[in-house]
Amino acid sequence: MEQARIVKSAAEMRALARRGEWLGTTAGHCSAYQQANLVILPREAAPEFAAFCTRNPKPCPLIEITPPGDPEPARSAPGADLRTDVGGYRVYRDGKLTEQRKEIRDLWRDDLVAFLLGCSFTFEHALIDAGVGVRSIECGTIISMFSTNVPCRSAGRFRGPIVMTMRPIPETQVELVCELSGRYPHAHGSPIHVGNPEKIGIIDLGRPTYGDPVAIYKGEVPVFWACGVTPQAVALETRPEFMITHEPGIMFLTDLPREGEMGREARQG
Amino acid sequence: MEQARIVKSAAEMRALARRGEWLGTTAGHCSAYQQANLVILPREAAPEFAAFCTRNPKPCPLIEITPPGDPEPARSAPGADLRTDVGGYRVYRDGKLTEQRKEIRDLWRDDLVAFLLGCSFTFEHALIDAGVGVRSIECGTIISMFSTNVPCRSAGRFRGPIVMTMRPIPETQVELVCELSGRYPHAHGSPIHVGNPEKIGIIDLGRPTYGDPVAIYKGEVPVFWACGVTPQAVALETRPEFMITHEPGIMFLTDLPREGEMGREARQG
Repeated sequence: MEQARIVKSAAEMRALARRGEWLGTTAGHCSAYQQANLVILPREAAPEFAAFCTRNPKPCPLIEITPPGDPEPARSAPGADLRTDVGGYRVYRDGKLTEQRKEIRDLWRDDLVAFLLGCSFTFEHALIDAGVGVRSIECGTIISMFSTNVPCRSAGRFRGPIVMTMRPIPETQVELVCELSGRYPHAHGSPIHVGNPEKIGIIDLGRPTYGDPVAIYKGEVPVFWACGVTPQAVALETRPEFMITHEPGIMFLTDLPREGEMGREARQG
Repeated sequence: MEQARIVKSAAEMRALARRGEWLGTTAGHCSAYQQANLVILPREAAPEFAAFCTRNPKPCPLIEITPPGDPEPARSAPGADLRTDVGGYRVYRDGKLTEQRKEIRDLWRDDLVAFLLGCSFTFEHALIDAGVGVRSIECGTIISMFSTNVPCRSAGRFRGPIVMTMRPIPETQVELVCELSGRYPHAHGSPIHVGNPEKIGIIDLGRPTYGDPVAIYKGEVPVFWACGVTPQAVALETRPEFMITHEPGIMFLTDLPREGEMGREARQG
């Protein structure tokens, strides 16, 4: 198993996942690339879910949607296969978790549509490069995630609260992390809330809704970002006949550059 | 009619359109807001078309998708009605233009999905503010648009070349317009090509595929940006049973701030 060292290449991470050799979170790996949440739904639900994502760009930044039946993310990782190239999958039937798997080849259907959505693991590397510690990476734990009282904009059947990640940040670095993460709109962008958990409906920071708790030291404040678990949680609320997602914390690695490609494409002329 | 003066408010522009009182292009109006292309398709084609847009973010920057049957763009202009609030509509049946209308209320169906896509009219205001002339606005003509030999990434049935707008820019200002428009990824971002029309398959700049020709003076170079006509042209190629779009040049006016809202939402905490 490969967890002891840092994997740098997105293609290598996908190859490890494809061979069933990747365990654990992808946080802290592949610092040059965008990481993505995965939600797979039948085409019947896809237009409404796409609408939900566009109406909630902070929790649900769309990186790529695949056409029904097509498992290749042709823009974000040409040649990759979304049925095998993620380290772990969850399979839901009628809204219930029924299986956890290393690949979903035999579950694939002609009517399935895959949604790749931005992930805050992408901008964490920018924080680390700027000298801001990311405690969940330092401790090897899963980032703390909280359901909040901040509502998403609804779209048809899809409605629910924004789920947020929380990172303890030294007061002196709060402005810096707001500015840095704001450069990553494709990875949830700048924080939604700083400082006061009660204001967004969080009662106990020690008991996250998903992931592990994390220590907050003196001089630090809790900073909250929109989280890619939001669309999964919202989709699950509708008890879809069939849905597949990645395992929490084990993201799909794209070949897209961390900072986004709009700038890079600019000078191709 | 209102064309003599500049309309500033997006809500006012939508109200004028709703009353059937708006004629002509929206270019040069509502400088604080994002303008949007409109494509309406039956839900059967919607997941594939959404996939096409995400695979081609430069020509097809997604601003909002509405759920099937819902004509309100709840994120980008809450309370607006996409059946009445655009100054002109085109109706296509089996891939043929069959009607031009001021509203489409009686054509609306429960299975229609609306796509709002970014428009370069949004960043033109930033060019003008920086002292860069936009000749098509100065001359009151429709911007020159060209089909090119640069292919889109395909998604299912949707495939075709990128359509580009062309603006003549003084050589000394080319770097500036690249930088300025690059700040507007939601409005096609920076240029795709600068200077050599033959390189992108354009034979005669005097004969645009859509819109009006424009003079290029000494010391100016033609600069090409991805254009929101691309998704319309690509959708039309598939001869959809039913499709509605805005009239070329007469865009939907959103309430979204011109520069995007990811930054603005940042400090709501």
